[in-house]
Amino acid sequence: MDSKQLIIQQSEQNKSNYLPNISVDAVIFGFDQNELKVLLLKMNYNHLWFLPGGYVQFSEDLDDALVRVLKERVGISGVYMEEFGVFGKKNRSESFFDDFDENLFHKQRFITLGYYALYNPLKLNPIPDEFSETCEWIYLSQLSDIDLAMDHREIIDKALLTLREKIAIKPIGYNLLPEKFTLMELQKLYEAILGKELNRGNFYRKIKNLGILKKLDEQRRGGAHKSPDLYSFDEENYAKALENGLSSW
Amino acid sequence: MDSKQLIIQQSEQNKSNYLPNISVDAVIFGFDQNELKVLLLKMNYNHLWFLPGGYVQFSEDLDDALVRVLKERVGISGVYMEEFGVFGKKNRSESFFDDFDENLFHKQRFITLGYYALYNPLKLNPIPDEFSETCEWIYLSQLSDIDLAMDHREIIDKALLTLREKIAIKPIGYNLLPEKFTLMELQKLYEAILGKELNRGNFYRKIKNLGILKKLDEQRRGGAHKSPDLYSFDEENYAKALENGLSSW
Repeated sequence: MDSKQLIIQQSEQNKSNYLPNISVDAVIFGFDQNELKVLLLKMNYNHLWFLPGGYVQFSEDLDDALVRVLKERVGISGVYMEEFGVFGKKNRSESFFDDFDENLFHKQRFITLGYYALYNPLKLNPIPDEFSETCEWIYLSQLSDIDLAMDHREIIDKALLTLREKIAIKPIGYNLLPEKFTLMELQKLYEAILGKELNRGNFYRKIKNLGILKKLDEQRRGGAHKSPDLYSFDEENYAKALENGLSSW
Repeated sequence: MDSKQLIIQQSEQNKSNYLPNISVDAVIFGFDQNELKVLLLKMNYNHLWFLPGGYVQFSEDLDDALVRVLKERVGISGVYMEEFGVFGKKNRSESFFDDFDENLFHKQRFITLGYYALYNPLKLNPIPDEFSETCEWIYLSQLSDIDLAMDHREIIDKALLTLREKIAIKPIGYNLLPEKFTLMELQKLYEAILGKELNRGNFYRKIKNLGILKKLDEQRRGGAHKSPDLYSFDEENYAKALENGLSSW
């Protein structure tokens, strides 16, 4: 059975279980090859790409709905997500279910709540659900080459903008980088998020001043250049900075 | 007719006009006497205090709904609001309409979208709607002395936290301060938002470095001390900083 038939089949059941008009969508960013990517599902009947998303049960807290949706749609758990935006244009999904009956649960107007997270792709093992032919990490630079459903491109763009704002006030990297990393690898992550190159000297000075790094007594060997020092995050200080922010006021 | 009767009377009409399960609530902060305050309505039957909020029409964009709700509930327009959080606990309004019939529109579960803005109380002239006996600016320090409905205290607290984060990356003050202000007045605003005292020398240096201020050829006269210089915001640079952020990376 393809996802079109499944959607029709589950429509009535959805009506009794889920709040109408509200959905959640998750933008999970990963970092790989010095580039950001995002986890997407490809629907198995119209071959459009989607953010993992879903509905909220009548008697379910919103946060629990998000956890369940991620488990059901991409088979992952333990991902801490942050709400970053609401997408509520009345026609945002209007044309999408054109080829379905008026009465379909999914055909209603949905206001969707956007959540984002940053995770190391190596630490997650996503599994596509029965609506999807595949679940893949797609580089942000390749998004324009695929067909994204509805306003999902706008949702991803807003998540990235939020991330750019957050990087000024929160430490970033813990879930994205390997346990041991070089300052250059951390700089590449910041550059990927900010979408611009940074001056190396300035970056090293500022990032060290945050007090969230521990210099290890190890070097990354094997490159053509002088072996660079390895660092890891100081968990206690990192947590403190997450809690209190890095505001300079 | 008090608001209890009105709510019952409008319930059926609401069902045909508004999306179920979704509401919007507005946290409008003002700054006065060196303190932040928030605009609240007091309901005229149970005398509880509420944020101005309301519902979303079936065929209305979310942003338009917010504009309409502010106009209807507190008679103000032209306030630019920013979404900052979603409040979706399943029992958040459970006990509130206990004394109403099960079938009441308002008695459904509502997930509410929180929006915030900063405005000079002198520039707004709020008028309470027919559900409310009064509409007032309440100092944040006095919130514990009044009875706030449902989770509206939590919504205000989250809005304030968001504002504290934003102050690190966005200029703040344009809608809150008079056109001409002293650096000390601006510092008091920052202190009110951050909830802590700032070192004067550091603050003056940092705020001047942002490039968003214009020093005027005027002083504030009449105080006991040396007349301090007056400043205004450099509109062009302020707008640029709003657009691009103040991130130091």
